[in-house]
Amino acid sequence: MKALVYDGVETLTYRDMPDPVASSDHELIRIEAVGICGSDMHAYLGHDDRRPAPLILGHEAAGIIVGGAQDGKRVTINPLVTCNSCTACRSGRENLCAKRQIISMPPREGAFAQFVAMPVANLVEVPADVPLSKAALAEPLAVSWHGARLAVAALHPDDPRRALIIGGGAIGLAAALALRAMGVGEITITEPNAKRRGFLRDHCGENIVETTDASFSIVIDAVGYATTREAASARVAPGGVIVHIGLGEDRGGIDVRRLTLQEITFIGTYTYTAQDFRDTAAAIFDGRLGPLDWCRHMPLGEGADAFAALRQGTVAEPKIILIPEH
Amino acid sequence: MKALVYDGVETLTYRDMPDPVASSDHELIRIEAVGICGSDMHAYLGHDDRRPAPLILGHEAAGIIVGGAQDGKRVTINPLVTCNSCTACRSGRENLCAKRQIISMPPREGAFAQFVAMPVANLVEVPADVPLSKAALAEPLAVSWHGARLAVAALHPDDPRRALIIGGGAIGLAAALALRAMGVGEITITEPNAKRRGFLRDHCGENIVETTDASFSIVIDAVGYATTREAASARVAPGGVIVHIGLGEDRGGIDVRRLTLQEITFIGTYTYTAQDFRDTAAAIFDGRLGPLDWCRHMPLGEGADAFAALRQGTVAEPKIILIPEH
Repeated sequence: MKALVYDGVETLTYRDMPDPVASSDHELIRIEAVGICGSDMHAYLGHDDRRPAPLILGHEAAGIIVGGAQDGKRVTINPLVTCNSCTACRSGRENLCAKRQIISMPPREGAFAQFVAMPVANLVEVPADVPLSKAALAEPLAVSWHGARLAVAALHPDDPRRALIIGGGAIGLAAALALRAMGVGEITITEPNAKRRGFLRDHCGENIVETTDASFSIVIDAVGYATTREAASARVAPGGVIVHIGLGEDRGGIDVRRLTLQEITFIGTYTYTAQDFRDTAAAIFDGRLGPLDWCRHMPLGEGADAFAALRQGTVAEPKIILIPEH
Repeated sequence: MKALVYDGVETLTYRDMPDPVASSDHELIRIEAVGICGSDMHAYLGHDDRRPAPLILGHEAAGIIVGGAQDGKRVTINPLVTCNSCTACRSGRENLCAKRQIISMPPREGAFAQFVAMPVANLVEVPADVPLSKAALAEPLAVSWHGARLAVAALHPDDPRRALIIGGGAIGLAAALALRAMGVGEITITEPNAKRRGFLRDHCGENIVETTDASFSIVIDAVGYATTREAASARVAPGGVIVHIGLGEDRGGIDVRRLTLQEITFIGTYTYTAQDFRDTAAAIFDGRLGPLDWCRHMPLGEGADAFAALRQGTVAEPKIILIPEH
């Protein structure tokens, strides 16, 4: 098959790779749409030790089952493969499974490819009227859905449902959509890139600004750098909640003194549970997350150009979806 | 009256100060027992900008009402004075009141003195059979009770009730007592001071070690330095909770990457609510927090020696209670 292979720092090659194969518990999926995640960009820049070259990146995918009893079924893929037997898995927190794997990280190749093999349990059927390019958003939307759910659960019931989201990329925008679906009415997004701000304001109707001095009971850091944690620490209201999604920088930025004196809860979040993924897919399918019309589509064969454009900050849309040719 | 006055860095003077006065909403209390807190030590070392010299420190006090309708009533003092009308106060989170004051911080003098004036609402009556030197522990015990309550509330219901407490001072020991009263059966305390470790092991029966490599669903940082947050970040189990009580250092030590990838909740906590204070006092009075026989008693007039001994690390007991002479 053809795949977009990460062959070294800032080097992606569209080339032949071995076909994945179905097995007793893995279906073969023909990929029809696969999104580029910030973590793919980290790997591309050589910043992720967990993703050494050569490797097929990509973990936000939807496609069609090829062969077997379910041949032709349209599915979106939960890329997190877990043991389903440990305490974490059995308590519905598969994202904490010590044996968790994710496609695009060894030993599993990713979905910037024509095909991928996945466990049956990781596949969610997509209704006929939902495009697979939209269904491929289930993964990033589930990340934000999970974070939003934890934020709302940790919020004191007497606090206003007033949220700041730091970062207007796909995770930030998706956090706004998820919070809104969960009844948070007042949402502000901050984003430094003017092009991106314009798109989210004009095309998505979001309340997006460069910076703010206001105070918010919920702050979602959808970036994860020391500077964004600094902003989160400063902008969260006393008694409020910071949900931290990104993995930009490992350390720094948290104002521990303020968190302590103002009794702030800081929640690190990683991916989603299997139930979050299914709930997010359902919310995509029934329209609760809006039209989801904020992606740029490009052929998988032009993936290297897509990464370069993202790197240059010239992409207004918060998400690029790559479309393999078959 | 006589008071132990913080007159400058590492300088405490037992000298005359103006008598506080009762008013329409303040009772005059004759102090019978007042504990030394880690925050008093910070102030004494000149590390707390909120407590400039000259100032009477001390906020862990119990005594007897003098004058008025309640003359002679034995009380323990909630030192946190709040507005009782803002959103935080009305939602039972008085510790988040933006107008909160605490005795020992301007404009309120502290309780290392023969007398203090306090709002009636801050006084909790002490039963006749409970010594006031024990009732004076309500404040530090309430700090830990509050932190323990938040930890247990944030713990996932499927997680084991297994706690690590970093720091074997009064707050750490009190956190062990509070967690135990709340049904947490397995508790380990880490403490670097061998003298303190010996006392907590031999006299209090605690499971106390210098360090540990084990993993805990609850970690309470009862110290608040970068190194203790580093330890908390490393020792908390995936999906677990860190409760941060101390104000040792303002920044550093949090392993944000691990908190994110392992979905850790970090809760900053400050003091206690009015209900926590009353609940803690009730738990002291009915014996749920144990014999509370781990304090060294010294005359208030020897307060300077007490601070010097604490500074030198030669005090095995986790708390010194100063007893004013009358």
